Amino acid sequence: MTDATFILVDGEPREMIAVLDRGLMYGDGVFRTIRLEAGRAVWWPDHLAKLAADCARLGLACPAPELWAADLQRLCAQAQNGVIKLMVTRGVGSRGYRPPQAARPSRIALLAPLPEWPASLWQTGVTVRLCELRLGRQPRLAGVKHLNRLENVLARAEWDDPGIHEGLLLSEEGHVISGVSSNLFLYRAGELLTPRLDDCGVAGVARGRVLQAAIARGVTVREQDLTLDDVLAAEAVWLTNSLIRVWRVARLGDRVWPQTGMDSVMREFVHG
Amino acid sequence: MTDATFILVDGEPREMIAVLDRGLMYGDGVFRTIRLEAGRAVWWPDHLAKLAADCARLGLACPAPELWAADLQRLCAQAQNGVIKLMVTRGVGSRGYRPPQAARPSRIALLAPLPEWPASLWQTGVTVRLCELRLGRQPRLAGVKHLNRLENVLARAEWDDPGIHEGLLLSEEGHVISGVSSNLFLYRAGELLTPRLDDCGVAGVARGRVLQAAIARGVTVREQDLTLDDVLAAEAVWLTNSLIRVWRVARLGDRVWPQTGMDSVMREFVHG
Repeated sequence: MTDATFILVDGEPREMIAVLDRGLMYGDGVFRTIRLEAGRAVWWPDHLAKLAADCARLGLACPAPELWAADLQRLCAQAQNGVIKLMVTRGVGSRGYRPPQAARPSRIALLAPLPEWPASLWQTGVTVRLCELRLGRQPRLAGVKHLNRLENVLARAEWDDPGIHEGLLLSEEGHVISGVSSNLFLYRAGELLTPRLDDCGVAGVARGRVLQAAIARGVTVREQDLTLDDVLAAEAVWLTNSLIRVWRVARLGDRVWPQTGMDSVMREFVHG
Repeated sequence: MTDATFILVDGEPREMIAVLDRGLMYGDGVFRTIRLEAGRAVWWPDHLAKLAADCARLGLACPAPELWAADLQRLCAQAQNGVIKLMVTRGVGSRGYRPPQAARPSRIALLAPLPEWPASLWQTGVTVRLCELRLGRQPRLAGVKHLNRLENVLARAEWDDPGIHEGLLLSEEGHVISGVSSNLFLYRAGELLTPRLDDCGVAGVARGRVLQAAIARGVTVREQDLTLDDVLAAEAVWLTNSLIRVWRVARLGDRVWPQTGMDSVMREFVHG
Protein backbone atom coordinates (compact mmCIF):
# COMPACT_ATOMS: atom_id res chain seq x y z
CA MET A 1 0.00 0.00 0.00
CA THR A 2 2.59 2.54 -1.05
CA ASP A 3 -0.35 4.55 -2.29
CA ALA A 4 -2.07 4.68 1.09
CA THR A 5 -3.31 8.13 1.78
CA PHE A 6 -3.97 8.10 5.49
CA ILE A 7 -2.92 5.98 8.48
CA LEU A 8 -4.01 6.19 12.11
CA VAL A 9 -2.10 4.40 14.86
CA ASP A 10 -3.96 4.40 18.15
CA GLY A 11 -6.09 7.20 16.77
CA GLU A 12 -3.18 9.47 15.79
CA PRO A 13 -2.08 10.18 12.21
CA ARG A 14 1.22 8.29 12.01
CA GLU A 15 2.90 6.21 9.36
CA MET A 16 5.21 4.32 11.69
CA ILE A 17 4.90 1.66 14.36
CA ALA A 18 7.39 0.40 16.95
CA VAL A 19 9.84 -2.20 15.63
CA LEU A 20 9.20 -4.02 18.90
CA ASP A 21 5.47 -4.36 18.22
CA ARG A 22 4.53 -8.04 18.34
CA GLY A 23 2.60 -7.55 15.11
CA LEU A 24 5.97 -7.27 13.37
CA MET A 25 7.92 -9.61 15.65
CA TYR A 26 5.54 -12.58 15.41
CA GLY A 27 2.55 -11.60 13.27
CA ASP A 28 0.72 -11.50 16.61
CA GLY A 29 -2.48 -9.79 15.53
CA VAL A 30 -5.50 -9.76 13.22
CA PHE A 31 -6.83 -7.54 10.44
CA ARG A 32 -9.84 -6.58 8.32
CA THR A 33 -10.14 -5.29 4.78
CA ILE A 34 -13.25 -3.19 4.23
CA ARG A 35 -14.77 -1.48 1.21
CA LEU A 36 -15.39 2.24 1.57
CA GLU A 37 -18.15 3.21 -0.83
CA ALA A 38 -19.98 6.50 -1.13
CA GLY A 39 -18.52 7.55 2.22
CA ARG A 40 -19.70 4.44 4.06
CA ALA A 41 -17.79 1.39 5.33
CA VAL A 42 -19.67 -1.45 3.67
CA TRP A 43 -20.88 -4.19 6.10
CA TRP A 44 -19.40 -2.31 9.06
CA PRO A 45 -21.31 -4.19 11.82
CA ASP A 46 -20.18 -7.52 10.35
CA HIS A 47 -16.56 -6.37 10.20
CA LEU A 48 -16.65 -5.10 13.76
CA ALA A 49 -18.11 -8.40 14.98
CA LYS A 50 -15.53 -10.43 13.03
CA LEU A 51 -12.68 -8.28 14.36
CA ALA A 52 -13.84 -8.89 17.93
CA ALA A 53 -14.27 -12.62 17.28
CA ASP A 54 -10.81 -12.95 15.73
CA CYS A 55 -9.22 -11.02 18.61
CA ALA A 56 -10.93 -13.39 21.04
CA ARG A 57 -9.49 -16.39 19.19
CA LEU A 58 -5.97 -15.06 19.86
CA GLY A 59 -6.71 -13.83 23.39
CA LEU A 60 -6.29 -10.22 22.25
CA ALA A 61 -8.25 -7.38 23.86
CA CYS A 62 -10.13 -5.84 20.93
CA PRO A 63 -10.32 -2.03 21.11
CA ALA A 64 -13.79 -0.68 21.92
CA PRO A 65 -16.30 -0.06 19.10
CA GLU A 66 -16.30 3.70 19.89
CA LEU A 67 -12.58 3.87 19.15
CA TRP A 68 -13.04 2.15 15.80
CA ALA A 69 -16.01 4.40 15.04
CA ALA A 70 -13.87 7.47 15.70
CA ASP A 71 -11.10 6.12 13.43
CA LEU A 72 -13.62 5.32 10.76
CA GLN A 73 -15.08 8.80 10.87
CA ARG A 74 -11.64 10.30 10.30
CA LEU A 75 -10.87 7.90 7.44
CA CYS A 76 -14.21 8.55 5.78
CA ALA A 77 -13.51 12.27 5.89
CA GLN A 78 -10.58 11.66 3.53
CA ALA A 79 -12.38 10.01 0.62
CA GLN A 80 -15.70 8.74 -0.63
CA ASN A 81 -14.33 5.44 -1.92
CA GLY A 82 -11.37 3.31 -1.00
CA VAL A 83 -10.06 0.35 0.94
CA ILE A 84 -10.02 0.52 4.70
CA LYS A 85 -7.69 -1.81 6.54
CA LEU A 86 -7.98 -2.26 10.29
CA MET A 87 -5.39 -4.10 12.37
CA VAL A 88 -5.07 -5.09 16.00
CA THR A 89 -1.72 -6.33 17.27
CA ARG A 90 -0.72 -7.44 20.75
CA GLY A 91 1.44 -4.31 20.96
CA VAL A 92 4.93 -3.97 22.38
CA GLY A 93 5.89 -6.73 24.76
CA SER A 94 8.86 -8.21 26.54
CA ARG A 95 11.22 -10.50 24.66
CA GLY A 96 10.01 -13.95 23.69
CA TYR A 97 6.88 -15.62 22.41
CA ARG A 98 4.98 -15.39 25.69
CA PRO A 99 2.12 -12.87 25.36
CA PRO A 100 2.68 -10.12 27.97
CA GLN A 101 0.11 -10.03 30.77
CA ALA A 102 -0.46 -6.30 30.54
CA ALA A 103 -0.26 -5.98 26.78
CA ARG A 104 -1.71 -2.80 25.34
CA PRO A 105 -2.87 -3.70 21.85
CA SER A 106 -1.95 -1.48 18.93
CA ARG A 107 -4.90 -0.19 16.89
CA ILE A 108 -4.20 0.62 13.26
CA ALA A 109 -6.63 2.01 10.69
CA LEU A 110 -5.63 2.97 7.19
CA LEU A 111 -7.20 4.12 3.97
CA ALA A 112 -5.88 3.23 0.52
CA PRO A 113 -7.30 3.72 -2.99
CA LEU A 114 -9.77 1.10 -4.17
CA PRO A 115 -8.25 -1.15 -6.84
CA GLU A 116 -9.86 -0.63 -10.24
CA TRP A 117 -11.43 -3.62 -11.91
CA PRO A 118 -13.01 -3.45 -15.38
CA ALA A 119 -16.77 -2.95 -15.14
CA SER A 120 -17.15 -5.83 -17.59
CA LEU A 121 -15.60 -8.32 -15.17
CA TRP A 122 -18.99 -9.46 -13.94
CA GLN A 123 -20.16 -10.27 -17.48
CA THR A 124 -16.92 -11.81 -18.70
CA GLY A 125 -16.24 -13.56 -15.44
CA VAL A 126 -12.78 -14.19 -14.01
CA THR A 127 -10.11 -16.75 -14.78
CA VAL A 128 -8.67 -18.74 -11.90
CA ARG A 129 -5.74 -21.15 -11.59
CA LEU A 130 -4.90 -23.88 -9.15
CA CYS A 131 -2.08 -23.03 -6.73
CA GLU A 132 0.65 -25.54 -6.00
CA LEU A 133 0.99 -24.47 -2.39
CA ARG A 134 -1.26 -26.48 -0.09
CA LEU A 135 -2.66 -24.85 3.03
CA GLY A 136 -1.42 -26.42 6.25
CA ARG A 137 -3.94 -27.67 8.80
CA GLN A 138 -4.10 -25.57 11.97
CA PRO A 139 -7.50 -25.68 13.68
CA ARG A 140 -6.33 -23.18 16.33
CA LEU A 141 -5.98 -20.48 13.65
CA ALA A 142 -8.46 -21.67 10.99
CA GLY A 143 -11.09 -19.11 10.03
CA VAL A 144 -9.20 -16.23 11.68
CA LYS A 145 -7.83 -13.38 9.56
CA HIS A 146 -4.55 -13.16 11.47
CA LEU A 147 -1.28 -11.53 10.46
CA ASN A 148 0.52 -14.82 9.67
CA ARG A 149 -0.10 -14.73 5.94
CA LEU A 150 3.02 -16.23 4.38
CA GLU A 151 1.00 -19.04 2.83
CA ASN A 152 -1.05 -16.45 0.93
CA VAL A 153 2.08 -14.52 -0.06
CA LEU A 154 3.80 -17.65 -1.42
CA ALA A 155 0.65 -18.77 -3.22
CA ARG A 156 0.14 -15.34 -4.81
CA ALA A 157 3.79 -15.33 -5.92
CA GLU A 158 3.09 -18.39 -8.08
CA TRP A 159 1.72 -16.41 -11.02
CA ASP A 160 2.47 -13.20 -12.90
CA ASP A 161 -0.08 -13.39 -15.71
CA PRO A 162 -2.49 -10.43 -15.34
CA GLY A 163 -5.12 -12.54 -17.13
CA ILE A 164 -5.33 -14.78 -14.05
CA HIS A 165 -7.52 -13.10 -11.46
CA GLU A 166 -7.25 -15.51 -8.56
CA GLY A 167 -5.65 -18.79 -7.46
CA LEU A 168 -7.51 -21.65 -5.82
CA LEU A 169 -5.98 -23.15 -2.70
CA LEU A 170 -6.25 -26.77 -1.67
CA SER A 171 -5.65 -28.13 1.80
CA GLU A 172 -3.04 -30.78 2.48
CA GLU A 173 -5.78 -33.40 2.25
CA GLY A 174 -6.73 -32.15 -1.20
CA HIS A 175 -9.89 -30.27 -0.27
CA VAL A 176 -10.59 -26.99 -2.02
CA ILE A 177 -10.54 -24.28 0.65
CA SER A 178 -10.67 -20.83 -0.97
CA GLY A 179 -9.00 -18.36 -3.29
CA VAL A 180 -5.77 -16.70 -2.18
CA SER A 181 -7.78 -13.66 -1.04
CA SER A 182 -11.37 -14.78 -1.45
CA ASN A 183 -13.88 -17.39 -0.37
CA LEU A 184 -15.43 -19.89 -2.75
CA PHE A 185 -19.02 -20.86 -3.54
CA LEU A 186 -20.34 -23.56 -5.87
CA TYR A 187 -23.84 -24.17 -7.18
CA ARG A 188 -24.97 -27.69 -7.93
CA ALA A 189 -28.35 -29.37 -8.15
CA GLY A 190 -30.16 -26.51 -6.48
CA GLU A 191 -27.72 -26.24 -3.58
CA LEU A 192 -25.17 -23.60 -2.65
CA LEU A 193 -21.94 -25.19 -1.42
CA THR A 194 -18.91 -23.64 0.29
CA PRO A 195 -15.85 -25.25 1.87
CA ARG A 196 -15.73 -26.04 5.56
CA LEU A 197 -13.08 -23.81 7.22
CA ASP A 198 -12.38 -25.69 10.45
CA ASP A 199 -8.85 -26.67 9.50
CA CYS A 200 -7.55 -23.78 7.41
CA GLY A 201 -8.66 -20.74 5.43
CA VAL A 202 -10.30 -17.47 6.46
CA ALA A 203 -14.04 -17.17 7.07
CA GLY A 204 -14.65 -13.81 5.41
CA VAL A 205 -17.44 -11.35 6.05
CA ALA A 206 -18.72 -11.57 2.44
CA ARG A 207 -18.93 -15.36 2.85
CA GLY A 208 -20.97 -14.92 6.00
CA ARG A 209 -23.33 -12.46 4.26
CA VAL A 210 -23.93 -14.88 1.39
CA LEU A 211 -24.63 -17.77 3.75
CA GLN A 212 -27.11 -15.71 5.75
CA ALA A 213 -28.87 -14.28 2.71
CA ALA A 214 -29.14 -17.67 1.03
CA ILE A 215 -30.58 -19.31 4.13
CA ALA A 216 -33.02 -16.42 4.60
CA ARG A 217 -34.29 -16.91 1.05
CA GLY A 218 -34.77 -20.62 1.43
CA VAL A 219 -31.78 -21.80 -0.58
CA THR A 220 -30.21 -24.99 0.71
CA VAL A 221 -26.66 -24.19 1.84
CA ARG A 222 -23.95 -26.65 2.79
CA GLU A 223 -20.56 -26.05 4.37
CA GLN A 224 -18.68 -29.21 3.58
CA ASP A 225 -15.48 -30.81 2.29
CA LEU A 226 -15.22 -30.12 -1.43
CA THR A 227 -12.74 -31.44 -3.97
CA LEU A 228 -11.44 -30.02 -7.21
CA ASP A 229 -13.76 -32.45 -8.96
CA ASP A 230 -16.66 -30.82 -7.14
CA VAL A 231 -15.55 -27.44 -8.49
CA LEU A 232 -15.27 -28.77 -12.04
CA ALA A 233 -18.67 -30.46 -11.77
CA ALA A 234 -20.39 -27.32 -10.42
CA GLU A 235 -22.95 -25.51 -12.56
CA ALA A 236 -21.61 -22.17 -11.37
CA VAL A 237 -18.65 -20.99 -9.28
CA TRP A 238 -18.13 -17.67 -7.44
CA LEU A 239 -15.50 -15.94 -5.38
CA THR A 240 -16.35 -13.48 -2.63
CA ASN A 241 -14.55 -10.97 -0.45
CA SER A 242 -15.24 -7.57 1.05
CA LEU A 243 -13.63 -5.65 -1.81
CA ILE A 244 -14.82 -7.52 -4.89
CA ARG A 245 -18.03 -8.61 -3.13
CA VAL A 246 -18.65 -11.36 -5.71
CA TRP A 247 -16.91 -12.48 -8.88
CA ARG A 248 -18.30 -15.05 -11.27
CA VAL A 249 -15.67 -17.64 -12.22
CA ALA A 250 -15.64 -18.13 -16.01
CA ARG A 251 -12.60 -20.34 -16.44
CA LEU A 252 -10.31 -22.78 -14.65
CA GLY A 253 -7.91 -24.43 -17.08
CA ASP A 254 -10.04 -25.98 -19.81
CA ARG A 255 -13.26 -25.75 -17.84
CA VAL A 256 -15.46 -22.84 -18.86
CA TRP A 257 -18.61 -21.73 -17.09
CA PRO A 258 -21.25 -19.67 -18.93
CA GLN A 259 -23.42 -17.15 -17.12
CA THR A 260 -26.45 -18.71 -15.44
CA GLY A 261 -29.61 -17.49 -13.78
CA MET A 262 -28.00 -18.08 -10.39
CA ASP A 263 -25.42 -15.36 -11.01
CA SER A 264 -27.90 -12.57 -10.44
CA VAL A 265 -29.30 -14.35 -7.37
CA MET A 266 -25.79 -14.58 -5.94
CA ARG A 267 -25.18 -10.92 -6.71
CA GLU A 268 -28.36 -10.03 -4.92
CA PHE A 269 -27.24 -12.04 -1.86
CA VAL A 270 -24.06 -9.98 -1.63
CA HIS A 271 -25.38 -6.58 -2.60
CA GLY A 272 -28.87 -6.84 -1.18
CA MET B 1 11.61 -6.39 24.17
CA THR B 2 10.54 -3.23 25.99
CA ASP B 3 13.99 -3.36 27.51
CA ALA B 4 15.75 -3.18 24.13
CA THR B 5 18.59 -0.73 24.26
CA PHE B 6 19.39 -0.12 20.63
CA ILE B 7 17.66 -0.63 17.28
CA LEU B 8 18.95 -0.06 13.75
CA VAL B 9 16.58 0.06 10.77
CA ASP B 10 18.44 -0.01 7.47
CA GLY B 11 21.55 0.97 9.38
CA GLU B 12 20.03 4.02 11.08
CA PRO B 13 19.20 4.25 14.79
CA ARG B 14 15.38 4.20 14.74
CA GLU B 15 12.73 2.60 16.88
CA MET B 16 9.95 2.71 14.31
CA ILE B 17 9.13 1.02 11.04
CA ALA B 18 6.52 1.81 8.38
CA VAL B 19 3.05 0.48 9.15
CA LEU B 20 2.94 -0.53 5.48
CA ASP B 21 5.99 -2.79 5.82
CA ARG B 22 5.03 -6.29 4.72
CA GLY B 23 6.74 -7.64 7.82
CA LEU B 24 3.81 -6.21 9.80
CA MET B 25 1.14 -6.66 7.13
CA TYR B 26 1.77 -10.36 6.45
CA GLY B 27 4.72 -11.52 8.58
CA ASP B 28 6.56 -11.48 5.26
CA GLY B 29 10.12 -11.86 6.52
CA VAL B 30 12.63 -13.87 8.55
CA PHE B 31 14.68 -13.36 11.72
CA ARG B 32 17.61 -14.55 13.79
CA THR B 33 18.27 -14.50 17.52
CA ILE B 34 21.98 -14.37 18.37
CA ARG B 35 23.92 -14.42 21.62
CA LEU B 36 26.29 -11.52 22.17
CA GLU B 37 29.01 -12.65 24.55
CA ALA B 38 32.19 -10.84 25.55
CA GLY B 39 31.62 -8.41 22.69
CA ARG B 40 31.27 -11.13 20.04
CA ALA B 41 28.22 -12.44 18.16
CA VAL B 42 28.39 -16.16 18.92
CA TRP B 43 28.26 -18.41 15.80
CA TRP B 44 28.10 -15.37 13.51
CA PRO B 45 29.02 -17.17 10.25
CA ASP B 46 26.34 -19.80 10.90
CA HIS B 47 23.72 -17.13 11.58
CA LEU B 48 24.64 -15.19 8.45
CA ALA B 49 24.40 -18.37 6.36
CA LYS B 50 21.05 -19.32 7.90
CA LEU B 51 19.68 -15.81 7.34
CA ALA B 52 20.63 -15.98 3.65
CA ALA B 53 19.17 -19.48 3.31
CA ASP B 54 15.89 -18.47 4.97
CA CYS B 55 15.62 -15.36 2.78
CA ALA B 56 16.13 -17.56 -0.29
CA ARG B 57 13.30 -19.85 0.84
CA LEU B 58 10.92 -16.87 0.77
CA GLY B 59 12.38 -15.31 -2.37
CA LEU B 60 13.68 -12.36 -0.33
CA ALA B 61 16.86 -10.51 -1.30
CA CYS B 62 19.06 -10.86 1.79
CA PRO B 63 21.07 -7.71 2.57
CA ALA B 64 24.81 -8.04 1.89
CA PRO B 65 27.11 -9.45 4.61
CA GLU B 66 28.98 -6.11 4.80
CA LEU B 67 25.77 -4.36 5.81
CA TRP B 68 25.12 -6.87 8.57
CA ALA B 69 28.75 -6.61 9.67
CA ALA B 70 28.40 -2.83 9.96
CA ASP B 71 25.18 -3.19 11.98
CA LEU B 72 26.82 -5.77 14.20
CA GLN B 73 29.78 -3.52 14.88
CA ARG B 74 27.46 -0.76 16.04
CA LEU B 75 25.42 -3.11 18.24
CA CYS B 76 28.56 -4.60 19.79
CA ALA B 77 29.77 -1.11 20.67
CA GLN B 78 26.74 -0.81 22.99
CA ALA B 79 27.32 -3.80 25.27
CA GLN B 80 29.55 -6.78 25.93
CA ASN B 81 26.67 -9.19 26.41
CA GLY B 82 23.12 -9.34 25.19
CA VAL B 83 20.67 -10.70 22.66
CA ILE B 84 20.97 -9.59 19.07
CA LYS B 85 17.93 -9.95 16.85
CA LEU B 86 18.20 -9.53 13.10
CA MET B 87 15.20 -9.30 10.82
CA VAL B 88 14.68 -9.04 7.07
CA THR B 89 11.25 -8.15 5.76
CA ARG B 90 10.06 -7.69 2.17
CA GLY B 91 9.71 -3.99 2.93
CA VAL B 92 6.92 -1.65 1.89
CA GLY B 93 4.89 -2.92 -1.04
CA SER B 94 1.72 -2.26 -2.92
CA ARG B 95 -1.58 -3.54 -1.54
CA GLY B 96 -2.27 -7.26 -1.58
CA TYR B 97 -0.41 -10.50 -0.97
CA ARG B 98 1.58 -10.39 -4.19
CA PRO B 99 5.27 -9.72 -3.45
CA PRO B 100 6.27 -6.50 -5.23
CA GLN B 101 8.74 -6.95 -8.07
CA ALA B 102 11.02 -4.15 -6.95
CA ALA B 103 10.75 -4.72 -3.22
CA ARG B 104 13.46 -3.12 -1.14
CA PRO B 105 13.81 -5.35 1.93
CA SER B 106 13.89 -3.77 5.37
CA ARG B 107 16.95 -4.64 7.47
CA ILE B 108 16.50 -4.53 11.22
CA ALA B 109 19.11 -5.18 13.89
CA LEU B 110 18.48 -4.80 17.58
CA LEU B 111 20.19 -5.39 20.86
CA ALA B 112 18.39 -6.38 24.06
CA PRO B 113 19.65 -7.54 27.46
CA LEU B 114 20.46 -11.22 27.80
CA PRO B 115 17.86 -13.05 29.91
CA GLU B 116 19.27 -14.26 33.22
CA TRP B 117 19.10 -17.94 33.99
CA PRO B 118 20.33 -19.43 37.29
CA ALA B 119 23.88 -20.78 36.93
CA SER B 120 22.63 -23.99 38.55
CA LEU B 121 20.27 -24.73 35.66
CA TRP B 122 22.76 -27.00 33.97
CA GLN B 123 23.16 -29.12 37.13
CA THR B 124 19.50 -29.18 38.09
CA GLY B 125 18.28 -29.47 34.52
CA VAL B 126 15.05 -27.97 33.23
CA THR B 127 11.43 -29.03 33.50
CA VAL B 128 9.40 -29.28 30.33
CA ARG B 129 5.73 -29.80 29.61
CA LEU B 130 3.82 -31.08 26.61
CA CYS B 131 1.91 -28.39 24.69
CA GLU B 132 -1.64 -28.99 23.53
CA LEU B 133 -1.18 -27.03 20.32
CA ARG B 134 -0.01 -29.21 17.46
CA LEU B 135 2.19 -27.73 14.77
CA GLY B 136 0.56 -27.64 11.34
CA ARG B 137 2.31 -29.27 8.39
CA GLN B 138 3.70 -26.79 5.85
CA PRO B 139 6.72 -28.09 3.93
CA ARG B 140 7.07 -24.74 2.11
CA LEU B 141 7.88 -23.00 5.40
CA ALA B 142 9.32 -25.84 7.48
CA GLY B 143 12.78 -25.22 8.89
CA VAL B 144 12.62 -21.48 8.16
CA LYS B 145 12.67 -18.96 11.01
CA HIS B 146 10.04 -16.71 9.45
CA LEU B 147 7.90 -14.02 11.06
CA ASN B 148 4.69 -16.11 11.11
CA ARG B 149 5.03 -17.27 14.69
CA LEU B 150 1.48 -17.42 16.02
CA GLU B 151 1.78 -21.14 16.68
CA ASN B 152 4.70 -20.45 19.01
CA VAL B 153 2.82 -17.57 20.67
CA LEU B 154 -0.28 -19.70 21.30
CA ALA B 155 1.82 -22.62 22.55
CA ARG B 156 3.82 -20.39 24.93
CA ALA B 157 0.56 -18.91 26.23
CA GLU B 158 -0.45 -22.35 27.51
CA TRP B 159 1.51 -22.10 30.76
CA ASP B 160 2.29 -19.53 33.44
CA ASP B 161 4.23 -21.63 35.91
CA PRO B 162 7.79 -20.21 36.15
CA GLY B 163 8.93 -23.70 37.17
CA ILE B 164 8.27 -24.90 33.62
CA HIS B 165 11.16 -23.88 31.39
CA GLU B 166 9.95 -25.04 27.99
CA GLY B 167 7.05 -26.73 26.21
CA LEU B 168 7.40 -29.62 23.79
CA LEU B 169 5.54 -29.36 20.51
CA LEU B 170 4.10 -32.26 18.58
CA SER B 171 3.14 -32.24 14.92
CA GLU B 172 -0.36 -33.03 13.77
CA GLU B 173 0.75 -36.60 13.13
CA GLY B 174 1.96 -36.89 16.74
CA HIS B 175 5.68 -36.61 16.10
CA VAL B 176 7.77 -34.63 18.57
CA ILE B 177 9.20 -31.66 16.69
CA SER B 178 10.86 -29.22 19.10
CA GLY B 179 10.45 -26.96 22.08
CA VAL B 180 8.50 -23.71 21.65
CA SER B 181 11.78 -21.84 21.17
CA SER B 182 14.36 -24.62 21.04
CA ASN B 183 15.37 -27.75 19.16
CA LEU B 184 15.36 -31.18 20.74
CA PHE B 185 17.97 -33.92 21.03
CA LEU B 186 17.68 -37.42 22.51
CA TYR B 187 20.36 -39.94 23.37
CA ARG B 188 19.58 -43.62 23.14
CA ALA B 189 21.72 -46.72 22.68
CA GLY B 190 24.79 -44.79 21.67
CA GLU B 191 22.96 -42.65 19.11
CA LEU B 192 22.07 -38.96 19.05
CA LEU B 193 18.56 -38.43 17.68
CA THR B 194 16.79 -35.25 16.63
CA PRO B 195 13.44 -34.70 14.91
CA ARG B 196 13.20 -34.38 11.16
CA LEU B 197 12.06 -30.83 10.29
CA ASP B 198 10.75 -31.24 6.74
CA ASP B 199 7.13 -30.62 7.65
CA CYS B 200 7.26 -28.10 10.48
CA GLY B 201 9.57 -26.58 13.08
CA VAL B 202 12.64 -24.36 12.81
CA ALA B 203 16.09 -25.77 12.05
CA GLY B 204 18.13 -23.66 14.46
CA VAL B 205 21.81 -22.77 14.28
CA ALA B 206 22.58 -24.48 17.61
CA ARG B 207 20.99 -27.66 16.27
CA GLY B 208 23.18 -27.48 13.19
CA ARG B 209 26.30 -27.00 15.34
CA VAL B 210 25.48 -30.03 17.47
CA LEU B 211 24.86 -32.21 14.41
CA GLN B 212 28.15 -31.17 12.82
CA ALA B 213 30.17 -31.58 16.00
CA ALA B 214 28.67 -34.97 16.75
CA ILE B 215 29.34 -36.28 13.25
CA ALA B 216 32.88 -34.90 13.36
CA ARG B 217 33.52 -36.83 16.57
CA GLY B 218 32.17 -40.07 15.22
CA VAL B 219 28.86 -40.10 17.08
CA THR B 220 26.03 -41.72 15.14
CA VAL B 221 23.40 -39.05 14.48
CA ARG B 222 19.92 -39.56 13.12
CA GLU B 223 17.33 -37.02 11.97
CA GLN B 224 14.11 -38.98 12.07
CA ASP B 225 10.47 -39.08 13.12
CA LEU B 226 10.33 -39.32 16.91
CA THR B 227 7.37 -39.88 19.18
CA LEU B 228 6.71 -38.88 22.75
CA ASP B 229 7.46 -42.48 23.68
CA ASP B 230 10.89 -42.06 22.13
CA VAL B 231 11.45 -39.02 24.37
CA LEU B 232 10.34 -40.90 27.47
CA ALA B 233 12.52 -43.90 26.56
CA ALA B 234 15.60 -41.75 25.93
CA GLU B 235 18.58 -42.01 28.30
CA ALA B 236 19.09 -38.26 28.06
CA VAL B 237 17.21 -35.30 26.56
CA TRP B 238 18.47 -31.82 25.66
CA LEU B 239 17.15 -28.56 24.27
CA THR B 240 19.27 -26.22 22.19
CA ASN B 241 19.04 -22.70 20.84
CA SER B 242 21.38 -19.81 20.20
CA LEU B 243 20.72 -18.14 23.55
CA ILE B 244 20.66 -21.06 25.99
CA ARG B 245 23.04 -23.08 23.79
CA VAL B 246 22.09 -26.33 25.54
CA TRP B 247 19.83 -27.23 28.45
CA ARG B 248 19.63 -30.67 30.01
CA VAL B 249 16.03 -31.80 30.43
CA ALA B 250 15.52 -33.17 33.95
CA ARG B 251 11.76 -33.67 34.03
CA LEU B 252 8.71 -34.15 31.83
CA GLY B 253 5.64 -34.99 33.91
CA ASP B 254 6.59 -38.01 36.02
CA ARG B 255 9.64 -38.88 33.97
CA VAL B 256 12.90 -37.75 35.56
CA TRP B 257 16.32 -37.88 33.90
CA PRO B 258 19.48 -37.90 36.05
CA GLN B 259 22.73 -36.38 34.77
CA THR B 260 24.72 -38.70 32.56
CA GLY B 261 28.17 -38.78 31.03
CA MET B 262 26.72 -37.66 27.73
CA ASP B 263 25.73 -34.29 29.20
CA SER B 264 29.28 -33.00 29.19
CA VAL B 265 29.85 -34.39 25.70
CA MET B 266 26.76 -32.53 24.49
CA ARG B 267 27.94 -29.36 26.19
CA GLU B 268 31.26 -29.69 24.47
CA PHE B 269 29.50 -30.06 21.10
CA VAL B 270 27.76 -26.74 21.60
CA HIS B 271 30.47 -24.78 23.35
CA GLY B 272 33.50 -26.30 21.63
